[in-house]
Amino acid sequence: MRVETICLNEERNVTLSAWISEVGGEFAPIERRPAMLVLPGGGYAMCSDREADPVAAAYLRAGYQTFILRYSTGEHRAWPNPMNDYEQAMEMIRGNADKWHIDVDRVAVVGFSAGGHLAACAATVAKNRPNAAILGYAALKKEICDMCQPGMPYPVDCVDGKTPACFLFATRNDMIVDICNTLDFEKALAEKGISFESHIYSFGAHGFSTGDKWLNPTIISGRIKDWVDDSIEWLEELWGTFEPKGFTAPVLERMVNADYAETLSAGCTIAHLKKQEPRVQELLAEAYGVVDAFIVTQFHDLDVARTAIEGYKLSDALLTLQVTVDKVLEIDAKLKEFPNDVCGN
Amino acid sequence: MRVETICLNEERNVTLSAWISEVGGEFAPIERRPAMLVLPGGGYAMCSDREADPVAAAYLRAGYQTFILRYSTGEHRAWPNPMNDYEQAMEMIRGNADKWHIDVDRVAVVGFSAGGHLAACAATVAKNRPNAAILGYAALKKEICDMCQPGMPYPVDCVDGKTPACFLFATRNDMIVDICNTLDFEKALAEKGISFESHIYSFGAHGFSTGDKWLNPTIISGRIKDWVDDSIEWLEELWGTFEPKGFTAPVLERMVNADYAETLSAGCTIAHLKKQEPRVQELLAEAYGVVDAFIVTQFHDLDVARTAIEGYKLSDALLTLQVTVDKVLEIDAKLKEFPNDVCGN
Amino acid sequence: MRVETICLNEERNVTLSAWISEVGGEFAPIERRPAMLVLPGGGYAMCSDREADPVAAAYLRAGYQTFILRYSTGEHRAWPNPMNDYEQAMEMIRGNADKWHIDVDRVAVVGFSAGGHLAACAATVAKNRPNAAILGYAALKKEICDMCQPGMPYPVDCVDGKTPACFLFATRNDMIVDICNTLDFEKALAEKGISFESHIYSFGAHGFSTGDKWLNPTIISGRIKDWVDDSIEWLEELWGTFEPKGFTAPVLERMVNADYAETLSAGCTIAHLKKQEPRVQELLAEAYGVVDAFIVTQFHDLDVARTAIEGYKLSDALLTLQVTVDKVLEIDAKLKEFPNDVCGN
Amino acid sequence: MRVETICLNEERNVTLSAWISEVGGEFAPIERRPAMLVLPGGGYAMCSDREADPVAAAYLRAGYQTFILRYSTGEHRAWPNPMNDYEQAMEMIRGNADKWHIDVDRVAVVGFSAGGHLAACAATVAKNRPNAAILGYAALKKEICDMCQPGMPYPVDCVDGKTPACFLFATRNDMIVDICNTLDFEKALAEKGISFESHIYSFGAHGFSTGDKWLNPTIISGRIKDWVDDSIEWLEELWGTFEPKGFTAPVLERMVNADYAETLSAGCTIAHLKKQEPRVQELLAEAYGVVDAFIVTQFHDLDVARTAIEGYKLSDALLTLQVTVDKVLEIDAKLKEFPNDVCGN
Repeated sequence: MRVETICLNEERNVTLSAWISEVGGEFAPIERRPAMLVLPGGGYAMCSDREADPVAAAYLRAGYQTFILRYSTGEHRAWPNPMNDYEQAMEMIRGNADKWHIDVDRVAVVGFSAGGHLAACAATVAKNRPNAAILGYAALKKEICDMCQPGMPYPVDCVDGKTPACFLFATRNDMIVDICNTLDFEKALAEKGISFESHIYSFGAHGFSTGDKWLNPTIISGRIKDWVDDSIEWLEELWGTFEPKGFTAPVLERMVNADYAETLSAGCTIAHLKKQEPRVQELLAEAYGVVDAFIVTQFHDLDVARTAIEGYKLSDALLTLQVTVDKVLEIDAKLKEFPNDVCGN
Repeated sequence: MRVETICLNEERNVTLSAWISEVGGEFAPIERRPAMLVLPGGGYAMCSDREADPVAAAYLRAGYQTFILRYSTGEHRAWPNPMNDYEQAMEMIRGNADKWHIDVDRVAVVGFSAGGHLAACAATVAKNRPNAAILGYAALKKEICDMCQPGMPYPVDCVDGKTPACFLFATRNDMIVDICNTLDFEKALAEKGISFESHIYSFGAHGFSTGDKWLNPTIISGRIKDWVDDSIEWLEELWGTFEPKGFTAPVLERMVNADYAETLSAGCTIAHLKKQEPRVQELLAEAYGVVDAFIVTQFHDLDVARTAIEGYKLSDALLTLQVTVDKVLEIDAKLKEFPNDVCGN
Repeated sequence: MRVETICLNEERNVTLSAWISEVGGEFAPIERRPAMLVLPGGGYAMCSDREADPVAAAYLRAGYQTFILRYSTGEHRAWPNPMNDYEQAMEMIRGNADKWHIDVDRVAVVGFSAGGHLAACAATVAKNRPNAAILGYAALKKEICDMCQPGMPYPVDCVDGKTPACFLFATRNDMIVDICNTLDFEKALAEKGISFESHIYSFGAHGFSTGDKWLNPTIISGRIKDWVDDSIEWLEELWGTFEPKGFTAPVLERMVNADYAETLSAGCTIAHLKKQEPRVQELLAEAYGVVDAFIVTQFHDLDVARTAIEGYKLSDALLTLQVTVDKVLEIDAKLKEFPNDVCGN
Repeated sequence: MRVETICLNEERNVTLSAWISEVGGEFAPIERRPAMLVLPGGGYAMCSDREADPVAAAYLRAGYQTFILRYSTGEHRAWPNPMNDYEQAMEMIRGNADKWHIDVDRVAVVGFSAGGHLAACAATVAKNRPNAAILGYAALKKEICDMCQPGMPYPVDCVDGKTPACFLFATRNDMIVDICNTLDFEKALAEKGISFESHIYSFGAHGFSTGDKWLNPTIISGRIKDWVDDSIEWLEELWGTFEPKGFTAPVLERMVNADYAETLSAGCTIAHLKKQEPRVQELLAEAYGVVDAFIVTQFHDLDVARTAIEGYKLSDALLTLQVTVDKVLEIDAKLKEFPNDVCGN
């Protein structure tokens, strides 16, 4: 590994530390690695060392090209300075993908507290979106954002259809950033159909970083440190497992269903398809003729089942019913001819 | 271990299976064990075997007296039948505490799906509240509750000051019980100041039980199975660790602060105390005189800090400031003379 | 689950507790489960409750049909009474496989201390061998066996070609059963080419059972409790993962290579094949012509590599060299025409 | 963190990479960190990158000052070149303890394969012994050592009274370094009374490093990667937990008992004390008068117990018997007046 510290903005004292690992040689046939950009916290007053190297080290072990951005803080913190720093860093990371052996579609951010705010802004309002965002005890709501400084976006209000899948963690008794920051952001992700994972641990003072004991002067829940390995496993689900021969097929999609896609498809929920125009209802009726058989085998009560089934993706319902893949693909193709009336939701 | 199956209601086919382990003998000096009541799911149409024995087995290993309630379902499911079954079971468990070697202050419930609804009702509206509740992909909101059957309480609307600490888990892409059931219940707990822990895993079909592979016909996230051991560790935090000599001191309280207690105290947040009557402000000013020192050492920005500190319990703030325990206890005693104006929240 | 306690020998007070779980119904399509026979310890003076139910509970959770044998102890402990009890229990378990929904090829034993001695005897000298043996701080050498009572076999001296794969665990500072019991048994397994896994934890008093805190009056290493889940994972490697549709393909074989099999094959190590008759050398030369290519790609030093490669199975060496599967199968078939001169080892 | 690469020997191309983390500042009150020296493998033909940075990263996350020694290999590998490189590195690490913020009594080595041989030599024959040694699939016996090159020490034959506590891991089916290398070294440690922990996993090709998937082209047991965190926990037992305020008290000693110490003490086993001179027997009889009470409470059979108890440290036996700490200290003081006749063992 070689460590480079790149000055992004001399006046604002913005630096990007790059921990670059080799490919080829003994690491062959690996040619590209995933990347992680670490955004430490510190209330936009500073960038905390406690949330920098120890975090980067975990992803370094996992094979990531790892970056730490020390963005504009203190006197330079005025928005959008930190955001501009992020954009510049992400452009540099993706722009140097060849040189740094990075897979440009597998670049995540992890941010803590105020750095979690910046990571959430990256995920929701940035030009250069990351491919996944990990948000630790992040400041996401108006009250805490305004407390840091006025004029910044409130990420809970900015989740959009381009937001990447997110992984959130926090402690219930955080006395600095109220747990509702995390809960409300998850609600916003749920409303837009975006995948996420979330771990809210029982107790632990704000700013626990990796949760390792040497970083925490007070007692915190012993489960907290699990978030680190859990986040790496979650990225494997989303991006495929990083292996010498490349990445395996992902098992997790950015969106939990296709209700927000540009066209209809068999990946839409039955509930969503039911709200569409009459010609879609005809298709649905055809596909859906077997639903009573489904209800009988999967549920114990017809009334319950008729409503319950509506949350299923049509494709999942059909495949569970042993409808052939070919038939499902045929229905899918027909549905894709219809634009998606998202307002139907 | 001996297994007893007790018929609680012959007409409605309600049974309580009791898995009772010995105390004394080789287990000496253990005299009382914690207890776990398992409430399987099944949409109030049935009680699923998949969410019964495998779950009980996990707590059996952990030393719990373990019970499985097969409550009123199907034709007998009309509310409040299941609730009455629960009350009867809990009365029997606590009523037989001597015979069954149970610590009456350490009786938890764990419920799944519809059983999670029943467990949440136990936690929020029952006469016999459990000492902790574990809610797995539970039905907690109006839509899903009404789908099961009209007339049942909506737990998200019933969280009160007597609700025990809760542990929640679910998967983001649950197609039967929308993830907002879990999120909204957590919001309700947060609003009442009640402790909780929550794990929302990336993906896994509704009804995954313990998350073990042999119970799941489709692929689910490998992290899901962590909830079982995590819930046992969480109960250790809340109740103390179960050891041969008895329980150690807990490290987690039911309430995250004392803002909802009957009187004021040093366990209230500074924000809450600031809303109280003038004489409380005088006490606060006295205790709080050192706050600028605190701000200077803990934060990098005075403006941020003055607001940030308000979420702290007064006692935590003072102890962090190295105010002596005796002094904190003195302030605490004085504050306790004031009734708590909860409406101030 | 239903619990039956079967009296195997009234005079000697020998009982088999059977914890039988259902198949079919909600567990469909599962038709057969793996089985675990628990042999508690107690110096052949008694059978410890601490090493009975909590252990069985762990495998119950994992879907096993679970049995606890309380074998002949105290005044009835004279050898071969305990061994006869074991044989009787194992015959009953396999004999009732249909009724108890058991896969007869997936029946393991787990024994502790003296029960570990009995489990090791089951693995090495019994008529009815288990399909896997888990040995916890087991008495395996002459000194400790004779201390329990004279006349019993010393398992370290009895490992044979039919011994199943074993999983061993113990603590380094065991003051009752010296750690060399475990080490010497592993050496014996290694000499016979039998697979095993072993975890020797830093410290913990003899008799820690599952390693859970409630069972241990003194402090023990926090890693000890890992053996339980590790043993379940190891059984999955050996038997395939237990899933609703049956067992997946195993990834671990009972023997680490085919050097002890009845005929030669491509599963033998190169070192073993090199000791065989001239016609085998001709075959080997043919197959092995590519070895220098292998050495060049895999090693950095020819002298080292020529010796190092000898520990490889021929098939592994060839496949690594990208020899086609068909070609390897052809060589394998030719080698299988030769009887195995085990003495060559 | 800053990375320095120090050339230790230009002619032999020996380098020490130092990954140095800060103390003070946000890491205050931490003043000294533990240190880890990584010795990659490669058959003394090279130093493998796969066993360098990813390993160092794990200890970096855990707060260690981390070093990678690329010792003499290939044409420069003649013994004692690599050993001299190690001595030079260790002298530099301890010699720069102030500058690099290192606790000189908490410097461990971790070595793999040939690097495991070097680490074992460091632990057994070096002038500058490490405070703990972690040995991964290490070459420790004559056959494999000679295969690498003649003239090197065989660590299995060199374990002495100054050898630090060791942590060993390997896979059962290692085709390059036979598992007996690990087993025989553990036997040697046991014979000298030295603490160790050991994990032998079921299967995985030689050279698996951290066991992470991205480093392993073939399937290996999923448990293998546990060794990394387990080794960190084990170091916490041995050195105390690394916390902001310094290290907690250790719970694990380098020696499992005091049978090899310079004088007798209550930390010696009863068996060892029984072999000593008559005046010691008098003391022992006095201390040991309560032993029958002990036997009756702890064991179920007097004959078994009288022998079993002999493996106990006298102090443990007495404290279990509820003899007061003061009394035990008194006996300890008297015993310490006698030199230890180690040959008595």
